[in-house]
Amino acid sequence: MASAEPPAGRGSAAPTLALEDVRTAQERIRGYVHRTPVLTSAALDALTGARLSFKCENLQKVGAFKARGAHNAVLSLTDAEALPGVLTHSSGNHGAAVALAARNRGIPAYVVMPSTTAEVKKSAVARYGGIVTYCEPTLRARESVTERIRAETGADFVHPYNDLRVIAGQGTAAVEFIEEVPDLDLLLCPVGGGGLLSGVAVAAKSLRPGIRVVGVEPALADDAQRSFRSGVLQPGTDAQTIADGLRGALGDKTFPLIRAHADDIVTVSEQAIVRAMRTIAEIMKLIIEPSSAVPVAALLEGAVSAREQRVGVILTGGNVDLDRLRWV
Amino acid sequence: MASAEPPAGRGSAAPTLALEDVRTAQERIRGYVHRTPVLTSAALDALTGARLSFKCENLQKVGAFKARGAHNAVLSLTDAEALPGVLTHSSGNHGAAVALAARNRGIPAYVVMPSTTAEVKKSAVARYGGIVTYCEPTLRARESVTERIRAETGADFVHPYNDLRVIAGQGTAAVEFIEEVPDLDLLLCPVGGGGLLSGVAVAAKSLRPGIRVVGVEPALADDAQRSFRSGVLQPGTDAQTIADGLRGALGDKTFPLIRAHADDIVTVSEQAIVRAMRTIAEIMKLIIEPSSAVPVAALLEGAVSAREQRVGVILTGGNVDLDRLRWV
Repeated sequence: MASAEPPAGRGSAAPTLALEDVRTAQERIRGYVHRTPVLTSAALDALTGARLSFKCENLQKVGAFKARGAHNAVLSLTDAEALPGVLTHSSGNHGAAVALAARNRGIPAYVVMPSTTAEVKKSAVARYGGIVTYCEPTLRARESVTERIRAETGADFVHPYNDLRVIAGQGTAAVEFIEEVPDLDLLLCPVGGGGLLSGVAVAAKSLRPGIRVVGVEPALADDAQRSFRSGVLQPGTDAQTIADGLRGALGDKTFPLIRAHADDIVTVSEQAIVRAMRTIAEIMKLIIEPSSAVPVAALLEGAVSAREQRVGVILTGGNVDLDRLRWV
Repeated sequence: MASAEPPAGRGSAAPTLALEDVRTAQERIRGYVHRTPVLTSAALDALTGARLSFKCENLQKVGAFKARGAHNAVLSLTDAEALPGVLTHSSGNHGAAVALAARNRGIPAYVVMPSTTAEVKKSAVARYGGIVTYCEPTLRARESVTERIRAETGADFVHPYNDLRVIAGQGTAAVEFIEEVPDLDLLLCPVGGGGLLSGVAVAAKSLRPGIRVVGVEPALADDAQRSFRSGVLQPGTDAQTIADGLRGALGDKTFPLIRAHADDIVTVSEQAIVRAMRTIAEIMKLIIEPSSAVPVAALLEGAVSAREQRVGVILTGGNVDLDRLRWV
C-alpha cells in the first residue's frame, strides 16, 4: 500500500491530529470497547530491571486494540454516510474490528481478504457478520476488488491504519493508560503501518510531554525504522517475520505523525519475539500474538534503554491459532 | 489428609468464620496481593446464555488465589510467632504462596513436597526462596516429615486449606468480586479441599444473602459433592483427573462451613474441563490451569443452571507447564 503512496516527511503538509481528537474518540467509543486492565508483574520487573505496566489490549473486544480505531471510524459517520455500510481490506484483526463496529452500528461491513488468509482470521470476520470477498493475494487484486466494491455499494472505506479516524481511536489506549499510570517515563508499542504508534504518540506527548514514545518492529521488517531515521518513507517488506501483523509500511498519514511525535523506532530479533510470547504466557498467564510480543522482546533483548524507568507496554492483541502456537 | 480427620457435618461444633474475619484479612493483605481484574466476554455470554464476569486470580501473585490465604496466615502471626518461620506441605500453588508471603515477612518458609512433584512446581517454590524438603509421595511420609520439621524449627504450620486464616484470606476474592459486580445471582468456584469455596461462601452470603454459591469439581473426584449431599465427610480419591489441584478432600474446618453456606456442589467431565481451558484461551486470551477450568466447564456442560443470570466465575490459577499443555 505505502509503496504506491508519495513519500512524506517533516517537510510535507503534516496531517493534523490533536489530543482533542483522541478525547472525542474516547467519548465516542465508550461502551463499545473494553477499558482494558493494566497489569504489573514483579517477576518481569526483576527480569528487566524496569518498573513495567502492561495495557492488555489482547483482552480488548475482537482480541485486539483495532476495536478502538474501527469503532471511532464507524461511529463518526453521519447516518447518511453510514447507510451504505463500510468497507476495508485486511488479513487480520482490523477486518474483524470493522465488522463488529458495523454490526454495532447496524450497517453492513464489506471486508476484502486475500484468499490465502488463515481460516482463524476468516472466521473471526464472519463471526461478527462481515461480508467477505476474497481476492488474489496481490496488492493490485486487493485494490481493484476494494475499488469495485466501493463503486458498487458506496460504502465508506476505513483503512487499517492510514486514516485519521482510526489513528485517533487507537490513541485512546494511551489516554486510558496514562490515566491509570500517570508517571510513565517510556511508552512502548509495536509498529507496522503505524496507526497505533501515531495515535499513541500524539496522545501521550500531549498528556505528558516528558514521556519517551518508542515503536518496536521486527528486524526482518525494519522499514518503519528506516523511514523514521531517513525521513523518507520506505516501502514495506515481504519479510516472513512471525509478527505477521507488522509487515505493512507506514502511510502518508502515520509517517509524519510518527516523525513529529515519536522518539525512536527500534528493532528486535525473531528469537526474542518468540521468547517474549512465551515469557508473557508463563509469567503473566496471557496469550499474546507475535506482533504484540515485539515491545516485550525489546525489553528482554535490551533494544531499548529502560532500566529503573517506569515503562508502559501496550500488549496489542491475543489472536493466535492455538493449534499452531509456537512456544519455542 | 482428610481421611485421617473425624467426620464433621451440620451437627458438629462448627468453626466460626464471619465476614468480619474476611474484611480483616482484606486489610491485612492489601499491598501484598493484586486486586485482580474482573473481565467480561460477549462471546462467552452468547455461548452460555448467561451474563458472565470472571475474577482473574490466574493473574494473581504466584499465579493463583492461594496468595491471598497464605498472606493472611503469615501476616496474622505476631512477631514472636513469626520468628521461627512457617511450614506447609503442598505439591502446588500453596507452597509457592507461603514461600512468597514468608519472604515478604522476612521469615523462612519450609515446604514439604513429594519427590514426584513436577519440576515447574518445585522451581516456583524455590523462586520465592522456600526451603524445600522432599518426601516419599505418601500421606504417612508427608505427615512425618512435616511433623519432624515442625519439631525441629518451631515453624507455624499453614495448612493449604483447613485453616481459618487461609479460608478468610481466600474469601477476600469474593469481597472484591462483589464490590465490583454487586448484582451477582450466582457465584461459581472450584472445590478441592474447600478453602476457597468455604471462604467465598461465607463472604458472599453475608454481603448478598440472595446469591447462590456453587462449588464445582471433576466427576472423577466427586468426594466433595458426596460429602456435601450426604452430610458425612468423605475421604479424597486417587482419581487421575486433569484438574490436579482438586484431588484433596474437604477438611473438618472447610466441610461445615461449606455445608452451612454453600448451595450445592456439581461435577463436570474431564472432556468438558479441557474444552473449557481451551475456550478461555481462545476467547479470553487467558491461560488457566485445569483446576480453574472446572466452573467454566460446568457452564459449558449445563451442569449448573445459569441462563439469563448474572454469574461470577473465579478463575483460580494459571500455572501450567506450557510444554505439556493439552488443548484437546
